[in-house]
Amino acid sequence: MNCEVVAVGSELLLGQITDTNSVWIGEQLALAGIDSHYQTKVGDNPDRIVSVLELALKRSDAVIVCGGLGPTQDDITRAAIAAVMGVELVRDPQVLSAIEAKFRARNRSMPSNNERQAEIPQGARVIPVIPGTAAGLICPINNAKGEKVIYAVPGVPWEMREMMHQGVLPDLHRRAASGAVIRSRVLRTWGLSESSLAEQLDKEIRRLDQSKAATIAFLASGIEGLKVRITAKADNETAALKILDDEAARLEALLGSIVFGTDDDTMESVVLAQLRAQNRTLALAESFTGGLIASRIVGVAGCSDVFRGAVVPYHLDLKQSLLGVQERQVVSERMVIEMAAGACRSLNADVGLATSGVAGPEPHDNTEVGVLCIGVCIDDFAEAITVKLPFDRERIRQFGCITALDLLRNRLKRRCV
Amino acid sequence: MNCEVVAVGSELLLGQITDTNSVWIGEQLALAGIDSHYQTKVGDNPDRIVSVLELALKRSDAVIVCGGLGPTQDDITRAAIAAVMGVELVRDPQVLSAIEAKFRARNRSMPSNNERQAEIPQGARVIPVIPGTAAGLICPINNAKGEKVIYAVPGVPWEMREMMHQGVLPDLHRRAASGAVIRSRVLRTWGLSESSLAEQLDKEIRRLDQSKAATIAFLASGIEGLKVRITAKADNETAALKILDDEAARLEALLGSIVFGTDDDTMESVVLAQLRAQNRTLALAESFTGGLIASRIVGVAGCSDVFRGAVVPYHLDLKQSLLGVQERQVVSERMVIEMAAGACRSLNADVGLATSGVAGPEPHDNTEVGVLCIGVCIDDFAEAITVKLPFDRERIRQFGCITALDLLRNRLKRRCV
Repeated sequence: MNCEVVAVGSELLLGQITDTNSVWIGEQLALAGIDSHYQTKVGDNPDRIVSVLELALKRSDAVIVCGGLGPTQDDITRAAIAAVMGVELVRDPQVLSAIEAKFRARNRSMPSNNERQAEIPQGARVIPVIPGTAAGLICPINNAKGEKVIYAVPGVPWEMREMMHQGVLPDLHRRAASGAVIRSRVLRTWGLSESSLAEQLDKEIRRLDQSKAATIAFLASGIEGLKVRITAKADNETAALKILDDEAARLEALLGSIVFGTDDDTMESVVLAQLRAQNRTLALAESFTGGLIASRIVGVAGCSDVFRGAVVPYHLDLKQSLLGVQERQVVSERMVIEMAAGACRSLNADVGLATSGVAGPEPHDNTEVGVLCIGVCIDDFAEAITVKLPFDRERIRQFGCITALDLLRNRLKRRCV
Repeated sequence: MNCEVVAVGSELLLGQITDTNSVWIGEQLALAGIDSHYQTKVGDNPDRIVSVLELALKRSDAVIVCGGLGPTQDDITRAAIAAVMGVELVRDPQVLSAIEAKFRARNRSMPSNNERQAEIPQGARVIPVIPGTAAGLICPINNAKGEKVIYAVPGVPWEMREMMHQGVLPDLHRRAASGAVIRSRVLRTWGLSESSLAEQLDKEIRRLDQSKAATIAFLASGIEGLKVRITAKADNETAALKILDDEAARLEALLGSIVFGTDDDTMESVVLAQLRAQNRTLALAESFTGGLIASRIVGVAGCSDVFRGAVVPYHLDLKQSLLGVQERQVVSERMVIEMAAGACRSLNADVGLATSGVAGPEPHDNTEVGVLCIGVCIDDFAEAITVKLPFDRERIRQFGCITALDLLRNRLKRRCV
């Protein structure tokens, strides 16, 4: 079973929008264990969309086409699929009334343009969940070699994701598994390379090769670490989830503290949850990371019960005046220990996290580019580490940010009593 | 003349890396006025790369293939192009010695793997600039319909960009213009919709339609505003640049303060340059934006001569203790005026910029989601505005960030004496 992805929209080709939908869909397919060999972007042109879909059907069993389901004249994905299927567009009364209901709920009447969104290719099934006003489609394509399928989902990311989870992935799983249930879970890890991870899990992977209970795969996600995907196949949902629970527990025991979360967890959501559970508040003193950690934390809705605030004391005198720091060596462990403690004091928090280092491009104060000191203070006990980060200014800062959050996570874990 | 883009790498299909190279190349092609109808991602598989390249050559005049030029066994783009050209790979002694020289410069000897990087398809030209160890290629493809071309560039973004600027785009321009020189310049604008911009420039666009001196195009770049591209075609470089200078001056006069920069300028690089020219320093008080503005500013290398630092006072008591604020209505113009003035005082800066608002998902303090107050204080004179931003939490924060920077830019412009 393999499935390719087609993203529709001239704005994608012009570089006006980054096609993150295909990236996300590609990852979901990989997580589901479905091969995907091609991704194509094509503009809002009927002939070109049809030719891309026909080619995709020739080389893959399934095609997910994303975008072009809106109400305007530019939105021609429905018509292109009908052309590929060799059928007419027909108005679906249930979809029409679902769209009308959405407008009524907002006390608005439906513009006539939106009627277009209820026109679907004859023989297509509508994905039951319609988060916006665009209906997703499951379009069977029958030819000499058996049944293939085109899925159509909207280009609006949250609408697309909901339809993928509720409609497309279950249907793909059903086709791939012919009756069996496939479920997967992701363990998020940070701090080990892929080869070290593989080494640590070598015995377990070989055990699974024998028992066939589940499979394990590694997926890199840049500075955010490595994902370990567990996939289980069973006769029913309960049995599949039981396998996942058992295997996840086994892997967590083998990997220890490098596992920071599962599935949709992020490093910052995990740290906020730890703090909340421990009834502790957080303050930041970010010199090196310059507000990056704060902006990630504030990105999590509902952070305000835990997050007190941050100081970005870019100059030494501000480290002194805002945080009461005495130390004068800017990039040093003593400095970040004083900054973290000062953040607790000045921002009245239980926990302080501090960064100071050299992001480049030039060395500073006799310190090499990439050197970062991180300080953590929890209930008046402060400690620090020094790391040396690779790459350029932007990536050094991003790596510094996640390294600091991971240090805080581990220290909170140790001091959770 | 049209040109499509092929990105090579299995990690792109697995969702491990977002293919930002194609986005950037797509924008460069649009800026250069070259049509681009398709973009394809394909994994590290020889047959699939060859089939994608052959298809691309069938439907486009030129193909830019990005990635797969490294030294490992996975890097098979060179071999795939040779197969498409129907030629052998031959070792290029000049490329080999250029790579050897790179290793010598770092006091390292060249691993034998890297010899692969000097193997190029017979008949291909090497792009003269080699920023890393991968050589870029210009590969002519002759068939019945005349000459087409494949360009090969590395997947490392900065290497790719340099080769695009130095090798690929000039060659594409030469092919497109058949002797003439094509140059373009981008005016960065912020604050007007595409239709308003078109309305303001309507007369000028009609004048250019008559005179044929230059063409104008609009390119959206999300929250970063609209780009206005001027393209000029002339017999030589000097004449083309003269046209660009004249037209840019004309457009800036018509558009006024919504033009914030040209070409590679960003809102934050422009604000930093203004402050530097005025010999003023900056401090931030970011409640709503939570460190986003600081992290953008610190992202600009060399900001420390101007940027003093920031405070993220997420709770009211920190607005009082760190910034000396008296006001108690959290989202109000009085609040951000006091915060901006407090930032100047507490962080010892000439200019203060402050944000306070409701990012959502829930209303707060009787204030709707999306309401943002921004305060600016320059040399003890403080003022504030209130805006209402659309969309979800993440985009509300991003929009708030750029809106605040733009307000500061305009106020600095007004008070530049």
